[in-house]
Amino acid sequence: MCQINLLRCSKKNDSLDISKNGIYEMMNGVGAHEVVIESPDHNKELYEHDKEHIFTVLKIWRSRYQELGNSSIIKYTQLFRNYGSAAGASLTHPHSQIIATPIIPKNITEELEGFKRYYEENGKCILCDMVPFEAKEKVRVVTENEEFLSFCPFAARFPFETWIVPKNHENQFSEVSDKNLRYLADILKKTLKLLAEKVNDPPYNLILRSAPYFLKKDTIYHWHIQILPRLTKVAGFEWGTGYYINPTPPEDAATYLRE
Amino acid sequence: MCQINLLRCSKKNDSLDISKNGIYEMMNGVGAHEVVIESPDHNKELYEHDKEHIFTVLKIWRSRYQELGNSSIIKYTQLFRNYGSAAGASLTHPHSQIIATPIIPKNITEELEGFKRYYEENGKCILCDMVPFEAKEKVRVVTENEEFLSFCPFAARFPFETWIVPKNHENQFSEVSDKNLRYLADILKKTLKLLAEKVNDPPYNLILRSAPYFLKKDTIYHWHIQILPRLTKVAGFEWGTGYYINPTPPEDAATYLRE
Repeated sequence: MCQINLLRCSKKNDSLDISKNGIYEMMNGVGAHEVVIESPDHNKELYEHDKEHIFTVLKIWRSRYQELGNSSIIKYTQLFRNYGSAAGASLTHPHSQIIATPIIPKNITEELEGFKRYYEENGKCILCDMVPFEAKEKVRVVTENEEFLSFCPFAARFPFETWIVPKNHENQFSEVSDKNLRYLADILKKTLKLLAEKVNDPPYNLILRSAPYFLKKDTIYHWHIQILPRLTKVAGFEWGTGYYINPTPPEDAATYLRE
Repeated sequence: MCQINLLRCSKKNDSLDISKNGIYEMMNGVGAHEVVIESPDHNKELYEHDKEHIFTVLKIWRSRYQELGNSSIIKYTQLFRNYGSAAGASLTHPHSQIIATPIIPKNITEELEGFKRYYEENGKCILCDMVPFEAKEKVRVVTENEEFLSFCPFAARFPFETWIVPKNHENQFSEVSDKNLRYLADILKKTLKLLAEKVNDPPYNLILRSAPYFLKKDTIYHWHIQILPRLTKVAGFEWGTGYYINPTPPEDAATYLRE
């Protein structure tokens, strides 16, 4: 079941015996949790570093995706950055985190199904369709370079939600080339700088969405980065329905960031 | 698509033209949003009122569920209570809110699928199986009365997450009897009082989960209330995966509330 989430991860020395009941399932707490300290400078945010430094951080991200993918236990790796206490950051020193899980998370399963459905209906990857459409429309674009588009998605859940998507189809972050990582460093720096400077340094969660490791290179998935500023509160309506009330249309957000 | 959520509700006078593109869909902003002012007393929380007063509030909730269900546009009604600013409450005066939508929300669709799958596999409603199991196990029970069980669910997403579930199968909140509403007033008062007194008056979101209106009386769904205290922050891992890190096992939470 999705909402009545009956799978639970055990804690060390968990003595709970649920074997007599068929409703619940307990899995071992295996996987990896890593913290990437992005620089020795306590007060310098990621985007304030030069592109070469950001490129180095991105290479570390990629190397961990590669290394964790070599494990026979790990099915999926989730990288994220929590910035600001409202976004759940418990450390102020600039850092990113990586959690690798032995199962494919719910959100990724749903996203894979969405990619699959769109492909079956349209014969293409949805992000491969969205990127040129958004680049042409311009109204939701924040910034772009040769290899990436940064834009506020059409059905943004949060004010100033911004996605960074590679222009060319690629499903695994672990396989991004050095050349493209340099372009990513460039657009990530620009996007985070615009958010910090124009939206008063908002708290945000950055999440990297990459394909589960079992997916072959030619499978329909398209890795990308989602930046979710935490300017509104997620409350009863959102928890109840899974729908989000966003008072700032993405067209307005992108215009504000861009101009 | 689920995560790449491409359906968006229009604002009044929205002039956005997306008809030239097949990826996005815009729906009219129709439905209802109502606020229930629970008493004239600005400083008296719901659980501090006597049971008769809470029963009156619950009758108002039920009457709105009934009334909104008469509309041909409304498919689903979501009642929620946001308490405390960390839970998104923008007013301090005790109140609950009702939002009725012309579509079945994502979370409800998923929950219905879960109920259906469990029924196909086990021939029973999952909550009809969980309630007697939990009542017998006792370890996750917070409190109970003749008609309702209040317990911390096995796969709780949040510390002190507590569900109030009717012991007898019923899918529509709009059809609850006066007798059962009185029992609900009793257990809601007890549960919210325990949370406030033992967990230092935490901010929380309360959500009422009832079946979409089109479901017949004998369809497998089981209405219930979820109380989600907001003591931890939802951060990058949760947004990325849809999985929740909960440092407080429900067995510990229930014991702490109960004893």
